[in-house]
Amino acid sequence: MTKEVFERLLNEKQYKAIKSIFDTMNPVDTAVLLPEFEDDKSLVMLFRLIPKENAAMVFTYMEPEQQQVLLETFTDRELKTIMDDMFIDDTVDIIEEMPANVVERILSAAGGKRAAINTILNYPEDSAGSIMTLEYVSLAPTMTIGDALKKIKSRGVHSETVNVCYVIEKHKLLGTVTAMDLLICDDDDLLSDVMEENPISVKTLSDKEEVAQLFNKYDVVSLPVVDNENCMVGIVTFDDAIDVIQEEAEEDFQKMAAIAPTTDKPYLKISVWELWKGRIPWLIFLMLSATFTGMIISSFEDALSKIVVLTAFIPMLMGTGGNSGSQASVTVIRGLSLGEIDVRDILRVLWKEIRVSVLCGVSLAIACFVKIIFIDGMLLKTPGVTNNVALVVALTLCLTVICAKVIGCVLPIIAKKMKLDPAVMASPFITTVVDGVSLLVYFGIAKAFLPELM
Amino acid sequence: MTKEVFERLLNEKQYKAIKSIFDTMNPVDTAVLLPEFEDDKSLVMLFRLIPKENAAMVFTYMEPEQQQVLLETFTDRELKTIMDDMFIDDTVDIIEEMPANVVERILSAAGGKRAAINTILNYPEDSAGSIMTLEYVSLAPTMTIGDALKKIKSRGVHSETVNVCYVIEKHKLLGTVTAMDLLICDDDDLLSDVMEENPISVKTLSDKEEVAQLFNKYDVVSLPVVDNENCMVGIVTFDDAIDVIQEEAEEDFQKMAAIAPTTDKPYLKISVWELWKGRIPWLIFLMLSATFTGMIISSFEDALSKIVVLTAFIPMLMGTGGNSGSQASVTVIRGLSLGEIDVRDILRVLWKEIRVSVLCGVSLAIACFVKIIFIDGMLLKTPGVTNNVALVVALTLCLTVICAKVIGCVLPIIAKKMKLDPAVMASPFITTVVDGVSLLVYFGIAKAFLPELM
Repeated sequence: MTKEVFERLLNEKQYKAIKSIFDTMNPVDTAVLLPEFEDDKSLVMLFRLIPKENAAMVFTYMEPEQQQVLLETFTDRELKTIMDDMFIDDTVDIIEEMPANVVERILSAAGGKRAAINTILNYPEDSAGSIMTLEYVSLAPTMTIGDALKKIKSRGVHSETVNVCYVIEKHKLLGTVTAMDLLICDDDDLLSDVMEENPISVKTLSDKEEVAQLFNKYDVVSLPVVDNENCMVGIVTFDDAIDVIQEEAEEDFQKMAAIAPTTDKPYLKISVWELWKGRIPWLIFLMLSATFTGMIISSFEDALSKIVVLTAFIPMLMGTGGNSGSQASVTVIRGLSLGEIDVRDILRVLWKEIRVSVLCGVSLAIACFVKIIFIDGMLLKTPGVTNNVALVVALTLCLTVICAKVIGCVLPIIAKKMKLDPAVMASPFITTVVDGVSLLVYFGIAKAFLPELM
Repeated sequence: MTKEVFERLLNEKQYKAIKSIFDTMNPVDTAVLLPEFEDDKSLVMLFRLIPKENAAMVFTYMEPEQQQVLLETFTDRELKTIMDDMFIDDTVDIIEEMPANVVERILSAAGGKRAAINTILNYPEDSAGSIMTLEYVSLAPTMTIGDALKKIKSRGVHSETVNVCYVIEKHKLLGTVTAMDLLICDDDDLLSDVMEENPISVKTLSDKEEVAQLFNKYDVVSLPVVDNENCMVGIVTFDDAIDVIQEEAEEDFQKMAAIAPTTDKPYLKISVWELWKGRIPWLIFLMLSATFTGMIISSFEDALSKIVVLTAFIPMLMGTGGNSGSQASVTVIRGLSLGEIDVRDILRVLWKEIRVSVLCGVSLAIACFVKIIFIDGMLLKTPGVTNNVALVVALTLCLTVICAKVIGCVLPIIAKKMKLDPAVMASPFITTVVDGVSLLVYFGIAKAFLPELM
């Protein structure tokens, strides 16, 4: 269904038809469609035509701007109905995006959930506690399957996942029972016999990125969150874990491309100013830091004016150095993110990168020497290309690649060790460091090997 | 439990103790532990001590090398037991990694599942069909909840997810019923009344990356796979979707760092040769393509020898150009991957990037001009720095940034349009193109504005 259809029906006041169409649509699709109506009146009107049982879901999936418009026009009763139907973790997500006066209205409409919302809001931003929900099914180990089924039936549908129920005694988490167990076992079986013991759990303050990786490792749909005494506090569900994995990957992509993370809006919705704000700080910083490469070149001006052809190889040397460094740094940064590499592995990583860099350096040096002699020298007849020059460039290339890979693999690990984000040590930063190193190596070797410069 | 504990127990032949410990461990953790035993004998011995009900799970999560060792030592009966307990999609994943003789053994032990395995193997590598499983619970619309519960109980546990059951009539997918519905509704309710109609589904040949994004969009744990006539073929489960999301992100990271994707092994397990093989092709290619930048510099040798200071700004101009280009290309590449940008949006993207690039270009040019006058000129007293030179460099910087961003945003979209992977148009490639452009702009402007060169 397209926007045009709804516009037409809205103009013709065919409200019943709109209601019927909404009834057949997935709430997520409805949430994507509504923001296309840019006048607030149509938006509010359409939202009121969404079937009651889907309204909270649609609301959850909308963009903050539209949520705010709706929140400001809802009557107290409407707000209360939506709040009653929303999951607590989703409510928290929305609260985090709203201005203070709207937050106040939400909290006063939240009724009994208010305490739970505040609990989650109080956990640090990157913790498991901040992405958990408090709505889960808890059962006692002394219950039979039959008892459990009765409890679930009476309690109703409002638990974010009943795919897994938690067996709890004196607040302590003992085990888990899946919906499958409940459907398949005999009514007389005791939960304590049926449950899976020693379930994987996370702590309230665990890093949310690590929590998300556990979903990937263990292929689970939810993970219980416990405090230091193993008392059950809440659960994290897989949809939040997927969001975290995706967000972290996008943040790493941005950092690696020298973009300051500003917003997680889709590209086409980000304003030109926001894009500029995210991009300009790194560009300025990197431009200024290139002052050093400029200084190095200036101080070897004499050498360059004596053998002008040396200048022609600067872009190639710096480019290859930068590329080699990024290869190592991106590999190590992702390894650290995914938990494949630990700070303690620094020597193993270093030893591996040294061997790889020697292999890469030597192969590149050979290829480069041959290329200079045959392409630059014989084919293009570039003036000044001699065997000595080719040797200097090839040797520099080999050493630059080795330095670049060592720098590229070590800096992210050191950053992590210093509790910084390893991704800031990505390509743009590494490239700047490697640029300087490669020029120093270049001119050093040139002075040592070229008789004209001695 | 660490490797040392098991080694000790194994030496002391305390098999019963090992069995008990395995019984308390999560199968995924067992699968991570076993490969630490590098002699095949211990590995096989330990595997036989895993409790029967967990053996298939542990096997599923092991690395291909160890799986092969085990497959080659299994008796026919052992193999059959494992195969019976494994999910079909996991079996397919393993088959894809094994040599022909092992595959043959697996298929002959697969029994009734053989046809299903072959069906999945026949779908193209990147399709939804290739990652689906054929094990799901199908129910008829005319069943009551009571009937459904009975069917599930009799059928047993071997469906990868009974969190969602599929309501099917004459092979056509009519709707879905969740485990929650089954637990909460009355036994007499008809499935056709209870089921969710119009479920989100994917086609067998849908791109698996798009399928994975649907899990993220709709927050579902499984998606039905249907053929062109809407007949139910299988399901894709969320764990496979997370894997796809993660794999695709890693592949994009590698491509953006000029690494040819060779293996998805964790970094510390990749051999030095494999790392070299993944990294050297792009390094050589990019080194050779720098011949062009070299040629440009050589052809302006006269200008450079007249005003030597111009050389000092080459790294800064190329670096900033490269960074600006990567910012645009990475943003667009990820936007395309996540489905936020479509090929049809090319003009909207271009218009947005032109505005951003003018903003960035002008701010950088101003900062650069000021920097050259005050830092390079007054502070460092670099010989040859004049107002004219500063103007030429700042102007070049502004134009280079604009060109870089335009190239960076357009090339990935063109690649996608030509059915190539947009990620190959990432930083290293863009940088090479931008390097050439920035030098041409630089020397062009220098010749036009510097009286010494006219």
